[in-house]
Amino acid sequence: MKWKTAISSYKDGEFYIRGVRLAKLVDDANLAETIFFILQGKQASKNQAKMLEAILISMVEHGIEVPSAFVARSVVSTGNSQNAAIAAGILAIGDMHGGAIEKAAFYFQSADSPQVIVERSIQRKERLPGYGHKVYKTEDHRTTALFKKSQELKLSMKYLNRAREIESELFRQTGKVLPLNVDGAVAAIISELGFNWRLGKAFFILGRLPGIIAHVEEECKNEKSYRRLDSEDVEYVGPTAI
Amino acid sequence: MKWKTAISSYKDGEFYIRGVRLAKLVDDANLAETIFFILQGKQASKNQAKMLEAILISMVEHGIEVPSAFVARSVVSTGNSQNAAIAAGILAIGDMHGGAIEKAAFYFQSADSPQVIVERSIQRKERLPGYGHKVYKTEDHRTTALFKKSQELKLSMKYLNRAREIESELFRQTGKVLPLNVDGAVAAIISELGFNWRLGKAFFILGRLPGIIAHVEEECKNEKSYRRLDSEDVEYVGPTAI
Amino acid sequence: MKWKTAISSYKDGEFYIRGVRLAKLVDDANLAETIFFILQGKQASKNQAKMLEAILISMVEHGIEVPSAFVARSVVSTGNSQNAAIAAGILAIGDMHGGAIEKAAFYFQSADSPQVIVERSIQRKERLPGYGHKVYKTEDHRTTALFKKSQELKLSMKYLNRAREIESELFRQTGKVLPLNVDGAVAAIISELGFNWRLGKAFFILGRLPGIIAHVEEECKNEKSYRRLDSEDVEYVGPTAI
Amino acid sequence: MKWKTAISSYKDGEFYIRGVRLAKLVDDANLAETIFFILQGKQASKNQAKMLEAILISMVEHGIEVPSAFVARSVVSTGNSQNAAIAAGILAIGDMHGGAIEKAAFYFQSADSPQVIVERSIQRKERLPGYGHKVYKTEDHRTTALFKKSQELKLSMKYLNRAREIESELFRQTGKVLPLNVDGAVAAIISELGFNWRLGKAFFILGRLPGIIAHVEEECKNEKSYRRLDSEDVEYVGPTAI
Repeated sequence: MKWKTAISSYKDGEFYIRGVRLAKLVDDANLAETIFFILQGKQASKNQAKMLEAILISMVEHGIEVPSAFVARSVVSTGNSQNAAIAAGILAIGDMHGGAIEKAAFYFQSADSPQVIVERSIQRKERLPGYGHKVYKTEDHRTTALFKKSQELKLSMKYLNRAREIESELFRQTGKVLPLNVDGAVAAIISELGFNWRLGKAFFILGRLPGIIAHVEEECKNEKSYRRLDSEDVEYVGPTAI
Repeated sequence: MKWKTAISSYKDGEFYIRGVRLAKLVDDANLAETIFFILQGKQASKNQAKMLEAILISMVEHGIEVPSAFVARSVVSTGNSQNAAIAAGILAIGDMHGGAIEKAAFYFQSADSPQVIVERSIQRKERLPGYGHKVYKTEDHRTTALFKKSQELKLSMKYLNRAREIESELFRQTGKVLPLNVDGAVAAIISELGFNWRLGKAFFILGRLPGIIAHVEEECKNEKSYRRLDSEDVEYVGPTAI
Repeated sequence: MKWKTAISSYKDGEFYIRGVRLAKLVDDANLAETIFFILQGKQASKNQAKMLEAILISMVEHGIEVPSAFVARSVVSTGNSQNAAIAAGILAIGDMHGGAIEKAAFYFQSADSPQVIVERSIQRKERLPGYGHKVYKTEDHRTTALFKKSQELKLSMKYLNRAREIESELFRQTGKVLPLNVDGAVAAIISELGFNWRLGKAFFILGRLPGIIAHVEEECKNEKSYRRLDSEDVEYVGPTAI
Repeated sequence: MKWKTAISSYKDGEFYIRGVRLAKLVDDANLAETIFFILQGKQASKNQAKMLEAILISMVEHGIEVPSAFVARSVVSTGNSQNAAIAAGILAIGDMHGGAIEKAAFYFQSADSPQVIVERSIQRKERLPGYGHKVYKTEDHRTTALFKKSQELKLSMKYLNRAREIESELFRQTGKVLPLNVDGAVAAIISELGFNWRLGKAFFILGRLPGIIAHVEEECKNEKSYRRLDSEDVEYVGPTAI
């Protein structure tokens, strides 16, 4: 089977990423620029790299309560290696946990007008991914902070403006304030930075990974026995034992 | 079941990492510092963060030939989501692919003398993880570059010196030049930065993830059909069909 | 968090599956009946169990060429545990590898007429899952054998007949002979046995698992080094190294 | 890369498992015989297949409380596909959950005497895998049932007797009654049936899979929102938020 790739190559004892010596990237030592470069094959500006860094950090941790944390911890607790536990944490990421970024980026990057996007979501009786939050009713302060940073870094605002237009259109059509949440903001920014919507979950994983690792390591260090649900948390609703 | 954690908390509409507002970390926008902080619970110096950044970048890509790349691509090629493919790529990391870091860090962080470490590996007829390379016979230039950077950044050299002492001891006891390779250098540096050896594979995954994602996305973008081995690559060695 | 289940319970030192003592199931020792019972909560007839057994066996192995085999082998080859390798093999199952069963069962179990089902697939320019085969042009002998067994076991034929009607309708509308293939036959049979289409991939995994395990064990037993692609199988198509 | 296999082959439109037509195995429709045959490459006797069937059923379900159940359910609850959820459930199997079979089979198949085996576990202050149970203090009735079935089926008793000798030796050296538990019984039986100890976890997975699938499907069918820990189950023990 033929495997084609444009990502890396090896020549005369040197390893290259998309034509650039890996040793040079190591020497420059900028992680966000490297991520941008290996994924897009072009150089980020210093400010684009700063913005990428900010959104990755914004996703790093969500508490022990979320599946990507407690699933990873449960898997390492039964005696598995850390890579198996990390893989399980990543499997726990899905449409309902980290998935809004991919979905929002998809329609941000579509050719549809804000009006059509909102109409369609109303017709389908679906909540529009990237808007609304159970705690932040009128404004998500994390979105505000990311937008502010984007302006400070003098980045283009095409997708960020589009995201705000959809927010206005949502209010117009539904009469409800559904503020752009942090997932929506991240979706707008990765679109602004030139990434395909398909990478939505991958970006969430990139940002989230240090948090997953922190949970796996905390479990290894501090916990002795393997994770079982308490019997008081379980309710049997099946046929009577005979 | 009780789940204890010191990693994150939520108070009055703000999310905190080990007592520090996540919003502050986003605002500072330094990924390597965030990784250091969420894993160790203390602030890295600017130079420690720079060093961490360098070693993560050094592990980012190893060619499409390695299991963490072609396994991830094969899984996405059958129609799975990117998170499942990334998880499979991480499962492909193991003692023989990325695992030398954990093993080398383990004995770097042990109380054993270089002499004892080398003697034991000779007795067990095991290659000492972190030393020797099939191409770089006398010196691994990636190791040299990481050591140089470490000196430039004026970091402590306790584990790096210990790694060199073991290299000398290896030559003394075996008569062979087995240079400290890049896995060994990374192991020495994460030890120097205060990380437990248990995190060896996790650091490899942290560094490697952008490369895995680049492969998964390249497969999604460019390849149509799902990955099957060619029949000429397969040799049937079982009983004759009857 | 409350976890409700009707699957199993524990009382007075005895474990029960849907109200029946596990010890009784062990004593009866019929694996297919147990699978049917734990999934549906009712007793299979002897003949239904026989049919289930036949379709599970029909899916057991597909050669080392398919992703569920070579991915699992690659993961164990890097030094991972067998459970991690088996998990990776299962991750390699997807819409394009084992996924046709779920899709065919979905429209077999829908309220749509054969005419509508075929028309829609033509409009969408999609191949109808469960029909056609690159080698078996006019008849898939595996389908024939499963149908014959179904008649011998005197099972109901509702979904099997429906599958044949769709085959006729396909010919009527396209003019091409696209025989019901083994995936389609399995989809019709699990529908006949009362299983929800959602379980399509799960049934494929149930049948496939012994084959995956055989490959993982063969790799552990016979192969020494970890799996890397040969450089002649790789083509670099990226920018020139600079 | 060359991939050698003795498991399956394809010739003249027919697929073969270790030289035997798959169609024949499907026609015979005996799942346990097929599992035995694909793993060992030889025919099980009817009674060996019956015994294999019994032990697989004995492992099918362990309650929603165990990681292989609640991890799989949590992964499907976030919107992942069933194959990803099943893979996560299998990742949750480990040395402390299903792993005793592999360990017990390892020393059952070793050349060491019962005396040496027990002495070594006492010296290492390790509990001997396969012995003792927190509820069944003097006898594990599941072990008793499996031994009884083994006698009824007139199977050889080499490893079963050895397992009992170790039980006696344990009492002799420790003064405590530590009955052979069901993991130990399964380990003895797979040894008796000729399987390598390395397959211990794989057998647990083979038996366990229908239970995992039942949990995944129950979650898909009955539960709406994704699994999060309740905040009352979480205790934050880190530095005060500043």
